[in-house]
Amino acid sequence: MSPILDREYLQALLDVEIALAVAEAEIGVIPDSCVHDIRAAARAENFDMAALVEAAASSGNIVIPLVRKLTEAVAAVNSESARYVHRGATSQDIMDTAAVLRLRSVSELLTAELTRSMRASAALAREHALTPIPGRTWLQQASPTTFGLKAAGWLDMLGRSRERIRESVSRVLVVQLGGAAGTLASLGEDGPAVTDALARQLGLAVPVMPWHAHRDRLAEVAAAFGIACGALGKVGRDVTLLAQSEVAEVFEKPSSRGGSSSMPHKQNPVRAVTAVAAAIRAPGLVATMVAAMPQEHERAAGGWQAEWETMADLVRVTQESASAIADTLGDLQVDRAAMREHLALHGGVAMAEGLTSALMVHLSRTDAMALVERLSRAAIRDRRPLRDLASADPEVSRVLSPAAIERALTPESFLGSAPLFVERVLQQWER
Amino acid sequence: MSPILDREYLQALLDVEIALAVAEAEIGVIPDSCVHDIRAAARAENFDMAALVEAAASSGNIVIPLVRKLTEAVAAVNSESARYVHRGATSQDIMDTAAVLRLRSVSELLTAELTRSMRASAALAREHALTPIPGRTWLQQASPTTFGLKAAGWLDMLGRSRERIRESVSRVLVVQLGGAAGTLASLGEDGPAVTDALARQLGLAVPVMPWHAHRDRLAEVAAAFGIACGALGKVGRDVTLLAQSEVAEVFEKPSSRGGSSSMPHKQNPVRAVTAVAAAIRAPGLVATMVAAMPQEHERAAGGWQAEWETMADLVRVTQESASAIADTLGDLQVDRAAMREHLALHGGVAMAEGLTSALMVHLSRTDAMALVERLSRAAIRDRRPLRDLASADPEVSRVLSPAAIERALTPESFLGSAPLFVERVLQQWER
Amino acid sequence: MSPILDREYLQALLDVEIALAVAEAEIGVIPDSCVHDIRAAARAENFDMAALVEAAASSGNIVIPLVRKLTEAVAAVNSESARYVHRGATSQDIMDTAAVLRLRSVSELLTAELTRSMRASAALAREHALTPIPGRTWLQQASPTTFGLKAAGWLDMLGRSRERIRESVSRVLVVQLGGAAGTLASLGEDGPAVTDALARQLGLAVPVMPWHAHRDRLAEVAAAFGIACGALGKVGRDVTLLAQSEVAEVFEKPSSRGGSSSMPHKQNPVRAVTAVAAAIRAPGLVATMVAAMPQEHERAAGGWQAEWETMADLVRVTQESASAIADTLGDLQVDRAAMREHLALHGGVAMAEGLTSALMVHLSRTDAMALVERLSRAAIRDRRPLRDLASADPEVSRVLSPAAIERALTPESFLGSAPLFVERVLQQWER
Amino acid sequence: MSPILDREYLQALLDVEIALAVAEAEIGVIPDSCVHDIRAAARAENFDMAALVEAAASSGNIVIPLVRKLTEAVAAVNSESARYVHRGATSQDIMDTAAVLRLRSVSELLTAELTRSMRASAALAREHALTPIPGRTWLQQASPTTFGLKAAGWLDMLGRSRERIRESVSRVLVVQLGGAAGTLASLGEDGPAVTDALARQLGLAVPVMPWHAHRDRLAEVAAAFGIACGALGKVGRDVTLLAQSEVAEVFEKPSSRGGSSSMPHKQNPVRAVTAVAAAIRAPGLVATMVAAMPQEHERAAGGWQAEWETMADLVRVTQESASAIADTLGDLQVDRAAMREHLALHGGVAMAEGLTSALMVHLSRTDAMALVERLSRAAIRDRRPLRDLASADPEVSRVLSPAAIERALTPESFLGSAPLFVERVLQQWER
Repeated sequence: MSPILDREYLQALLDVEIALAVAEAEIGVIPDSCVHDIRAAARAENFDMAALVEAAASSGNIVIPLVRKLTEAVAAVNSESARYVHRGATSQDIMDTAAVLRLRSVSELLTAELTRSMRASAALAREHALTPIPGRTWLQQASPTTFGLKAAGWLDMLGRSRERIRESVSRVLVVQLGGAAGTLASLGEDGPAVTDALARQLGLAVPVMPWHAHRDRLAEVAAAFGIACGALGKVGRDVTLLAQSEVAEVFEKPSSRGGSSSMPHKQNPVRAVTAVAAAIRAPGLVATMVAAMPQEHERAAGGWQAEWETMADLVRVTQESASAIADTLGDLQVDRAAMREHLALHGGVAMAEGLTSALMVHLSRTDAMALVERLSRAAIRDRRPLRDLASADPEVSRVLSPAAIERALTPESFLGSAPLFVERVLQQWER
Repeated sequence: MSPILDREYLQALLDVEIALAVAEAEIGVIPDSCVHDIRAAARAENFDMAALVEAAASSGNIVIPLVRKLTEAVAAVNSESARYVHRGATSQDIMDTAAVLRLRSVSELLTAELTRSMRASAALAREHALTPIPGRTWLQQASPTTFGLKAAGWLDMLGRSRERIRESVSRVLVVQLGGAAGTLASLGEDGPAVTDALARQLGLAVPVMPWHAHRDRLAEVAAAFGIACGALGKVGRDVTLLAQSEVAEVFEKPSSRGGSSSMPHKQNPVRAVTAVAAAIRAPGLVATMVAAMPQEHERAAGGWQAEWETMADLVRVTQESASAIADTLGDLQVDRAAMREHLALHGGVAMAEGLTSALMVHLSRTDAMALVERLSRAAIRDRRPLRDLASADPEVSRVLSPAAIERALTPESFLGSAPLFVERVLQQWER
Repeated sequence: MSPILDREYLQALLDVEIALAVAEAEIGVIPDSCVHDIRAAARAENFDMAALVEAAASSGNIVIPLVRKLTEAVAAVNSESARYVHRGATSQDIMDTAAVLRLRSVSELLTAELTRSMRASAALAREHALTPIPGRTWLQQASPTTFGLKAAGWLDMLGRSRERIRESVSRVLVVQLGGAAGTLASLGEDGPAVTDALARQLGLAVPVMPWHAHRDRLAEVAAAFGIACGALGKVGRDVTLLAQSEVAEVFEKPSSRGGSSSMPHKQNPVRAVTAVAAAIRAPGLVATMVAAMPQEHERAAGGWQAEWETMADLVRVTQESASAIADTLGDLQVDRAAMREHLALHGGVAMAEGLTSALMVHLSRTDAMALVERLSRAAIRDRRPLRDLASADPEVSRVLSPAAIERALTPESFLGSAPLFVERVLQQWER
Repeated sequence: MSPILDREYLQALLDVEIALAVAEAEIGVIPDSCVHDIRAAARAENFDMAALVEAAASSGNIVIPLVRKLTEAVAAVNSESARYVHRGATSQDIMDTAAVLRLRSVSELLTAELTRSMRASAALAREHALTPIPGRTWLQQASPTTFGLKAAGWLDMLGRSRERIRESVSRVLVVQLGGAAGTLASLGEDGPAVTDALARQLGLAVPVMPWHAHRDRLAEVAAAFGIACGALGKVGRDVTLLAQSEVAEVFEKPSSRGGSSSMPHKQNPVRAVTAVAAAIRAPGLVATMVAAMPQEHERAAGGWQAEWETMADLVRVTQESASAIADTLGDLQVDRAAMREHLALHGGVAMAEGLTSALMVHLSRTDAMALVERLSRAAIRDRRPLRDLASADPEVSRVLSPAAIERALTPESFLGSAPLFVERVLQQWER
């Protein structure tokens, strides 16, 4: 696997080498004097990235040529200092610790984007707590709900996704330092002290033992990212469905929608689709991180190497999705009138359960359901309002007054606990 | 997707219907008198499972025919009571809550099996804390480590896997009750009180809102199970590699190994292989659970339905793997002598880093590595001990005494922090 | 992995044992006399499936206990015949050959179901070759197409899926006979002749060598099944989208739709959703079959074992999906009027490209697109027909006559090659 | 999904725009005169890739900003010609056709690398057709096979993988041209003629209809690539296992092995591990391509977008794997003596089946297996040769002469059909 190398990752690798030198000087494993030289040389801009990538392919990882080049660069200034580069470490120590550092910064960005989505969801939930919209199950109209509850559902799930990222990343923030076989043997007695000092330098925790072939923490972060993509994908899917030309209950703001190279009227929900696409890609990437886990002995022959690009892809996909949804929800346009109109479609059969509930006070559940099913089918077939059919039906009017029928078929009177649920989610968010 | 229906799951579904009736009677939504009738009818042995499965295929889920049959059974005793079956609930309420109940009991079994594996790993770690074994990276001998550290690594990772299952399952233990569109509308004002009472009945928590189309908690449990399979698969892979005929450092106990239908001497590490196979299957199943997340609106048109068998498969695969590894580690036979012999293979070049470390006190890192590389290649090529070649080499003997060379090439003197790491892992386990 | 054992698979295993005995008697490896005894004993109904499954868990596969029980059963009749059971074979020979036999029968059923879907698609394509419907891209209305072309697209893709299953299954129809290590050593000189005879018995081809650890043919079949699920899932997704309450251009026939346990009016597209769910499950199952491929040496330690249930799941998922779509398309109700009404939504901007095309004869592409984009936005914003706005616009009427504007905005006049494409697909189908 | 854009892909996109202009000029849809201007402008080096990628993120795909910039560039030379850029096409037409062109060239490179691996496998198979090596099943020694048969197995499977790539790519070599809604409406009557001309220009076939949302051909190519990765991964896994320090039957050539940043003696099988890593990554990528298949209506809202980077990753992973294995096998060092030594391990019990076969001429299968199992366990337990124990056993010597025992325990006499299988595979290769 040729590593993906960008300047930021290269610098993270070099930062670990610097921190290692600082830590070893602090413990007395290497002389203080060399730290300055190593730090001076360890600047990403001094390295030829293309050459490193090419050399990595044959040596097996990027750190082998990087240490060679870094040692040369230090030696060019001070050959004595060059002796102390990378002392006691194995390539994987540097790569894993750099990966952890990057996950820390990624998780901050991601948390911020998710917070932005949550804020927008909260605003929609609050504004539309009582806005009726058809509930839809199996992509068919069910009883009504409110658009606010839909947004509250997004908020609640995105909140758990953010928390899951925080927790899983907090668990992966452990330094990796094990040396060649995970025993730190070449540091003699000083291994644990160097590890502690290195962790302090980088603001990471110290694990009870090195984890070269124990990758569950990384897989957990991958799963948290993947599940976040799934949650964002649910938002994206809901938005694309609500934005369909025939539904048109919400829109992405015109200025930000994608166009078409051939249709001038076309305004595609590009950002919501980005989240749907991310949710299609994430499962395969998460699967790879889990599949890579059974790593052989003290360092893998395949599994570790499979992680590199996979994790980089997953990070990027998750970030794009989080930004896309934050943008989408941030300027979402909502058409309350369209929602209300759709509740009246097909004779207003979306209110069938409301009528059944009213009837069940007087009839058995089975009888009430059979009666309303008959009326609903007639409403759809004859394109007549369920209200008219119910009013005209002797069985119904035997037990329900005209006012009761009217009330039973009014969406606002059949929202159940939707407003309460919205309230609870908002209270949780505000805490 | 035809649902997998076993008696245990059928009873879990019926238990939720019973608990719902109890809760609704408590709140006064239905009369107390009907609870007894519903409870009496809701026994798995009264239902024809094959007929339910067949009916489920056309109605879309198992609860629709189940409620029909349950209502008939109650009505046969008391037609009034039959009016109150399944009041206010939707099929998914029953299925999701039953699934949660099953995850609770599965997680207890799983935790017990993981604990059994951990206990066995701890015993191996303690006994072999100082037993040298070749470290192996990229499936090549590296510097030595101890077999106890290998077992400690299993223990540490299995412990995190157990914790992850506990945490994720604790988060999924929430009742599902939302009714047709997730608003509990048909329960009028009583929805939240019924939900609270139902949750109390079943020992579950109350979510801030129904979660029919918000599946992140289930995906998190799936990920925790999958990561446990990955961790168990790492143990299984290590065991199968150590048990290879040419390595033979550990064995499964003869009585418990698999045989061959054609080779009388054959004793296959069947249980370790079960864990490797589980680790190959789990990623695809986890991926499906994540892929199913973007569920449409208030109930999915595909995603929810894809979860059913997938989660059942994943549960079974994880349980089999956990039991297999607990059994394997529980009676693992260890051959210390074989481990020691392998440290002497190829002239003992596994100790090359030990010699380099000793030399680096006197030579630069680059010079020391070049010198030992030259000697190592000669040892391999000429099939001579590295010890002899080093002793005979003037560059080496110029800086190291014969005793120093001997020490540098003795595995026990180059175990670094392995014993300390074992100690730390055991302390953590004993807490 | 505990094997899934049903009576049909058990008989397939026994049929391979019978065929092996027949083949070996034919070649003279075993006496003719024993064939009758083996055949008589090898009836699935004589075996305790639960006991076999339990024994399989510890021995590593189902054939080890099965051969033991079969040998006992033969011995009970004739101890001499019992010596010749399973001669020269290894368990995997029996399991792989039985799996191949089952794939042959599965593929026939699957081909028939796909043919049924194709026939229904062809009927829809023919009937609706000229029925205008909004084209939809990114879930937004684009220019018009015909419902017949949509059905032709299904037909074309299902046809390739059927062909792919046929081809991949035809390649997997090879016998497996390698014995303990894949050399047929225990059959001495007779191995190849026995293999040929066995293959003839079963109607299978003879591979150039045994394939115990070379699983690409199975992975190819898995991929073909998975891709068929993807194709069927596309049909299922289109149907669920077209059947949405707000779109309602097609319906599953009422009698066959799923109901709701709480909403009497509800008619869920259960069968189309089954196909969508299958398309969510298949990718993970295909991935597992590919992931299982790198099998160790002459027989796997994990990969082969991971195949068993995975392939069984994938077969079942594919069959359910194919049947569901065949049923759905077989009685699909189509509402032409709804399709036409939707073309007029939002002022009829779905015809924007038609107008642009007409204008581009006179204006530059950029100018035409800008002009139509301005008119389209006004149509949407002001809820006025694009036709009226175009007729009133001086720039448009400067270059287009009222009749030309009318023609440019009529769906039937802007269907391009849709009818031709339908015709081509139908011709291909009829061949 | 931000598209991955390299210069080669950018030029492929531009080449499709050029070919479209040529085709349209040929049919008379656009004037001949503009072709020269479009061709002159459509050079990758004229475009700012970073700016295109950024613009793509908001417009939804790369072709929208590319067509804008291309039109500007043409207009700068001749504003009349600029009117005819991208005439009648939609973005996806250009992207899909460019993707197909790239798959064509990728498949040529890949076929060449696989051929190189096959040639190397064939040489090994020929040279080692009779070289005994322990067969290994479940990672335990089974009866002997030959190293040549192992290599023949690689050759045979790589051959099918190469064929599968050829076939699947040949089926995907169809032009995409459908315009906005897949009807080619804006080209009026000329759509089919333009499509034919475009296909001729590019050397592609003409599909019966556009395939914007029918992605099975791409999924099939993805599966073929993934299965090739699985096959290459099997070779990689076998090589890493055979190269283990304790097995050491094969080596990658020293000059080409990877080193260690800390262990001077270390020579890692970097290339074989690259193939193992690729086989871990490919399943997730294949799964994504299958998961992306259920694309909505006439153009997807997520699935198409998910394909872009996934397919690019899969192509790269497959190429790296194919090159790595071709290199590994090309200079593989084989140690026949080590293979022979391993056949004598554990008292030579790998020959147990040989002894059983010899005994079964005289004893029942059950008795022979029980006898050899007893002797084998004694050989392992007492570390004595099976040969000595068999010779000393009265039951054995009662039926077998000393020469017969010797022959039964000689690997060369128990290779069965291994040489024949090698011969068949080589004959097939030479055809």
